[in-house]
Amino acid sequence: MRTMQLGLVGFGTVGAGAARLLIDNAAIIQSRTGAKLRLKSIADIDIETDRGIALPDGVLTTDVEAVIDDPNIDIVIEMIGGETIAKEIMLRAIANGKHIVTANKALLAKHGNQLFRAAADHGVEIAFEASVGGCMPVIKTIRESMVANHIQSMVGILNGTCNYILSNITDAGSAFQAALAEAQASGCAEADPTLDIEGYDTAHKLAIITALAYGMEINFDDIYIEGITAITPMDIEYARQFGYKIKLLAIGKRSANAVEARVHPTMIPADNILSSVNGTLNALTITGDATGDTLLYGHGAGMMPTASAVLSDIVDIARNLLTGAGGRVPMLSYPFEHIQPRPIKPIDDITTHYYIRFSALDRPGVLSIISGILGQFNISIQSVHQKGRRSNGSVPIVMLTHQAREKHIKQAIEQIVQQDVITAAPMLIRIEDNQQPG
Amino acid sequence: MRTMQLGLVGFGTVGAGAARLLIDNAAIIQSRTGAKLRLKSIADIDIETDRGIALPDGVLTTDVEAVIDDPNIDIVIEMIGGETIAKEIMLRAIANGKHIVTANKALLAKHGNQLFRAAADHGVEIAFEASVGGCMPVIKTIRESMVANHIQSMVGILNGTCNYILSNITDAGSAFQAALAEAQASGCAEADPTLDIEGYDTAHKLAIITALAYGMEINFDDIYIEGITAITPMDIEYARQFGYKIKLLAIGKRSANAVEARVHPTMIPADNILSSVNGTLNALTITGDATGDTLLYGHGAGMMPTASAVLSDIVDIARNLLTGAGGRVPMLSYPFEHIQPRPIKPIDDITTHYYIRFSALDRPGVLSIISGILGQFNISIQSVHQKGRRSNGSVPIVMLTHQAREKHIKQAIEQIVQQDVITAAPMLIRIEDNQQPG
Repeated sequence: MRTMQLGLVGFGTVGAGAARLLIDNAAIIQSRTGAKLRLKSIADIDIETDRGIALPDGVLTTDVEAVIDDPNIDIVIEMIGGETIAKEIMLRAIANGKHIVTANKALLAKHGNQLFRAAADHGVEIAFEASVGGCMPVIKTIRESMVANHIQSMVGILNGTCNYILSNITDAGSAFQAALAEAQASGCAEADPTLDIEGYDTAHKLAIITALAYGMEINFDDIYIEGITAITPMDIEYARQFGYKIKLLAIGKRSANAVEARVHPTMIPADNILSSVNGTLNALTITGDATGDTLLYGHGAGMMPTASAVLSDIVDIARNLLTGAGGRVPMLSYPFEHIQPRPIKPIDDITTHYYIRFSALDRPGVLSIISGILGQFNISIQSVHQKGRRSNGSVPIVMLTHQAREKHIKQAIEQIVQQDVITAAPMLIRIEDNQQPG
Repeated sequence: MRTMQLGLVGFGTVGAGAARLLIDNAAIIQSRTGAKLRLKSIADIDIETDRGIALPDGVLTTDVEAVIDDPNIDIVIEMIGGETIAKEIMLRAIANGKHIVTANKALLAKHGNQLFRAAADHGVEIAFEASVGGCMPVIKTIRESMVANHIQSMVGILNGTCNYILSNITDAGSAFQAALAEAQASGCAEADPTLDIEGYDTAHKLAIITALAYGMEINFDDIYIEGITAITPMDIEYARQFGYKIKLLAIGKRSANAVEARVHPTMIPADNILSSVNGTLNALTITGDATGDTLLYGHGAGMMPTASAVLSDIVDIARNLLTGAGGRVPMLSYPFEHIQPRPIKPIDDITTHYYIRFSALDRPGVLSIISGILGQFNISIQSVHQKGRRSNGSVPIVMLTHQAREKHIKQAIEQIVQQDVITAAPMLIRIEDNQQPG
């Protein structure tokens, strides 16, 4: 039986998970793969901390280069994260002819085009199932299961921290800061939660799957990103009254000539299956022209779910090595020569429904002023709600609009906030609701 | 660019869907596969009916043997269905060295062991993603994405007809016969619905995935099967009051030495994500030791969703042919030499919670009689509900039990129905509820 030699770089939570799964489930992996997967070396700055994994002597090293330059290593598992050292290590390992398995969405979102090209030039593969949606088979489903589909849209919850916080605000009515503190205390949010709560992590993942689904280069820079820090219990309560839930969604849609790629808090119907995705769980709806709506659901992060995805990639590469089938599935879903330039639509050009919560003086005529300005921009109002309580002399006026262009919404709001009766910046939340009358 | 020659046998709905997708989405398939997939011949008894697909002259034939014996055909797509002719055709095509793509769950459930062995002996593959869950990537997820997991359980809704009927009874309060008639009128149920409503179709699929997940031979005969024909709106209403929904579930669980494989109507908590799966949609929860709970959701049947799965299999085989990677993934998830004999637990040996609805005379002492007998069999009652209305002189008495062994439940019921106060056979529905106190 052939042995594949693995080198692990980065022995943090995710790296330790991969090592543990390789060791604990070695028998099942070997019987199903038909090869031995031997964890030959693990490189980390810290090789003193006991991670509770029984490793043979000599596996741990602080010398990264000894791992990525080791001619006997077939596959390098990059589990450092971040965009600087990880990139150098990956490029050097690629140049050394190593296959790469990684969960590093930030790196792939920002430098993936260069890295995948380098891998192709050196005849190796970069496998990255763990970079999007943890153990959910997002990459495999897009690349393989939906291979005969024109993918039309993808809508998903791809960050467990945000979903945990929003679920908490929804269920307990906590304010955002309290919900964040609770998430940090329970280990669901990091000490510096910026990447998660500001939507960047979700956008990294969206950049990757948008490229795979629509046959385009990875384009993180043009994704519109808005986090969840401004969401209040009041907005969530209004959403509930209208039959919606608020989720931080990654939205990637394809129309004839354009791609939409955006990350923002979104109201979705309570009976949409994504509304049932609570806590740290993730889910992604993928809609193809043949399949219709499909959904993947599972743990999008965490030590062992992520390890499961890492191992599925390792086994995929091992199976390719065993059968000599390198390059069997194009890394970016399409071969390079079929990857098209496809611009991402500016957010101002999207058309959707909106929830707008104005704070205004409790005075006759206010509604007329607001609706008059909206009318000037051809924004048609579906319903108006004024039942909220007064606070600091202001009352909330909530409007749901029919389909409108974002640019017009913003222009209208810009005029509305200049009115004396408006007391604070309005809250704008996009609605994703196919069933809603247009 | 290499051309793969395809022969389609069976030009009904699913076969026509595969042909349509091959033709309509030829460009995307070709660009992603790196090969041309040419539909060389289609065999069917009926080649006169216009299926609305523009085929080149000479593709259609009534001569099946001309297709499966054609030395130029690489892949035979078996879309006849059923267990007799389809089996002969498949065996002959295999003997001719053709790879097989099929959606035929009945055939694989009953003769899969023989067919997969024949394929292995002839160095060809049988691909069957479309046989379970339509476009949901069930087979690929179990075989590839969860390759490093010990799968612990699978619980799913795998028959759209049953789910449509149960959703209809739940939403409209229709009786079963009315809901079935409605499903037939809307095309969601066949004229002879036996295979679906009696649970056989679900069991065919469960037999296949149980083998893949637990490394055992396909064993359809020992699966416990109970359909949905006895479910009444009253039971669904009680379920609602207790916070449950009733779904026809395929349940496949693995414990140390035993496998549970059963199909029956089941009460599940309303907040279980499977409770949100309505209409003809399917979903499957797969729980692995590393992944935890995951779920796949989508259209489990229908012309184009099934075609999408068929095409993913064709492309998988084409990619193997291009790279010479035949046998890259073991067909049954484990290589034959690792497939273990694993008996399926008799239904009498399972332990779960039960809903039992007795019909009894509205008379003092009835509850004491029933609960006394249950107590003799060590069955502990969680709650009793007697609020239903009298009909034909009887009242419903509903009991939810704590964990109990099925054998004891049946023995107790056998004694209870002999009591004069019992007026009709009781309704027994198993409850699947991990959260419920045991």
